[in-house]
Amino acid sequence: MSELRWDPLKTTWVIITTERGRRPRDFILEREKISMAACPFCPGKEDKAPNELFAIRPSGSPANTPGWQVRAIPNKYPVLRIEGGLDKRGEGLYDVINGIGAHEIIVETPHHERHLGDLSIAEIAQVLKAYRARLLDLRKDSRFRYILVFKNHGVEAGASIPHAHSQVIALPITPKVVTTKLQVCRDYYDRKERCLMCDLIDQERRDGKGIIRDDGHFVVYAPFASSSPFEMRIAPLRHSHDFALLSDADLERLAETLKDTLARLSATLRDPPYHMVLHNAPPMHPRMGKPGYWGSLPYDYHWHIELVPRLTKMAGFEWGTGFFMNPTPPEEAARFLRDADLSEEG
Amino acid sequence: MSELRWDPLKTTWVIITTERGRRPRDFILEREKISMAACPFCPGKEDKAPNELFAIRPSGSPANTPGWQVRAIPNKYPVLRIEGGLDKRGEGLYDVINGIGAHEIIVETPHHERHLGDLSIAEIAQVLKAYRARLLDLRKDSRFRYILVFKNHGVEAGASIPHAHSQVIALPITPKVVTTKLQVCRDYYDRKERCLMCDLIDQERRDGKGIIRDDGHFVVYAPFASSSPFEMRIAPLRHSHDFALLSDADLERLAETLKDTLARLSATLRDPPYHMVLHNAPPMHPRMGKPGYWGSLPYDYHWHIELVPRLTKMAGFEWGTGFFMNPTPPEEAARFLRDADLSEEG
Repeated sequence: MSELRWDPLKTTWVIITTERGRRPRDFILEREKISMAACPFCPGKEDKAPNELFAIRPSGSPANTPGWQVRAIPNKYPVLRIEGGLDKRGEGLYDVINGIGAHEIIVETPHHERHLGDLSIAEIAQVLKAYRARLLDLRKDSRFRYILVFKNHGVEAGASIPHAHSQVIALPITPKVVTTKLQVCRDYYDRKERCLMCDLIDQERRDGKGIIRDDGHFVVYAPFASSSPFEMRIAPLRHSHDFALLSDADLERLAETLKDTLARLSATLRDPPYHMVLHNAPPMHPRMGKPGYWGSLPYDYHWHIELVPRLTKMAGFEWGTGFFMNPTPPEEAARFLRDADLSEEG
Repeated sequence: MSELRWDPLKTTWVIITTERGRRPRDFILEREKISMAACPFCPGKEDKAPNELFAIRPSGSPANTPGWQVRAIPNKYPVLRIEGGLDKRGEGLYDVINGIGAHEIIVETPHHERHLGDLSIAEIAQVLKAYRARLLDLRKDSRFRYILVFKNHGVEAGASIPHAHSQVIALPITPKVVTTKLQVCRDYYDRKERCLMCDLIDQERRDGKGIIRDDGHFVVYAPFASSSPFEMRIAPLRHSHDFALLSDADLERLAETLKDTLARLSATLRDPPYHMVLHNAPPMHPRMGKPGYWGSLPYDYHWHIELVPRLTKMAGFEWGTGFFMNPTPPEEAARFLRDADLSEEG
């Protein structure tokens, strides 16, 4: 069982793995690169993973067998476990919560060598449908205060298994990045009766320098105060707090935007490592409105995707201050991404 | 001129380099390792850097010539510049401040191949004296709201030049990590008339599992809610908000603690990359008490050093939530560090 521990000085939660803790030699030995033969996500290796939670199977094949195109499975080595109680307690000045939650893998394609950006628009739309399905299912569990969907691409971005996959983590607390954004958006709405993200998107579109792509449904831009080089935000132009409410047609359009954006990123920076993070409103919670219980009212939030290439290292400065140095002005990054030569891309 | 840009959604500042912005190819090309011949920090290369700001020269040699043991110089490629006005302004919903500040390098030793942990206790004390001298000098400038002293060791921790050095950055804003800690400590003191850090240290010492070293003056411990594996906090047992108030004798004792701690770290994890960050109270400011102006009253804060080995990668999860996964329980990390075999170390 892992634990969530509260640091009263930094006012942050940390997930600590208390079983099978990594010992010094684990950090000294280089992690072996997982070969294709050993890949636990390839078709035919369904028995290497726990039972599947969701799959798109055009072949009509039975669960936990090959024939799928996208597949969600529990992580075999989860940082948070689904079984058990939260057992919230104090430890002197510290607070502790059992590491209860969900940790799932969405395998994006049966093909070991294909990345998300290599897939067709229809295939990317299926990955997005898997996101939606898992969000809708996990939010039924009232122990979970937030459900994070994200993806690490490339070893430098923390992807330990190369086969293309996303992750879904359901958390027993609302994380600080989310509560900060949510609080800021609520305060703004309370004062102005307008959505902050809508206003930010309007400003970026009027200014134009940071815009990378805009098809009238989704906008892709390099935010004026990006924390890292070539960072992009993808957001719907029509206000919506909840990704899970998107229709199949919306997901197709978003897949088109995502494929084009990943092609621009790859053409500009030669397949860089990146994180992709879905920032969505937290699910409704029975105790919503009580301290610590955040829920999603439609005006509270405006969902968006952050696409963050990992090009700079977090160093002592970022650690000590919590703010970032970005060596590439976002308006220049946007220009490179806008002008990317896509002729080599599929 | 770089800029500080405020992200109204994340409520953070970002430093953006607007001149000589890094272009895509800068991230594609591997950074060449700086050879000893080209090292700008070696003795005899004093003309490669701007005029020195502070030096300890037992040889009595003149400034900007060899013969020094520790030397503070302006960074030749500063992220923040000393000349100019802040020119605070709005850019629609965003805020912008000119990148005014100071960015200095403290070269810790004339020897290219020696790391901080290889130096003698007396030599480490000289490095700490340089920290104190630069803190005392920079806080005279009322444009600066915070002065950060930190060090990156190893390429993976962001050290682009291998010759042992620390950095000093003076900032025109008080960074979020600092204001959060300061606010928490003030609130705690207001309620209890006790220092939170003093109480945390008491708790860790009573519990004992996280303690790595305790000589009655300085304690080294792995905090119960550490964000990353083998993270250590070094703090004075006697309450003090300001590192710059330490006497020469205090600095000698701290140097002894630091040398021992670095030896334990190196023996346990074979010279891992690490960050070292001095968390100190902000300097007094003429407008202290006004919103955004933080200053150091003696009870507000308790200075400490964070020593953070870089063993895990920041991935999408940390990016999307602002909280960390730590795969090594701090009490186990403390046991390894406490029991480290120091026989091979100097």
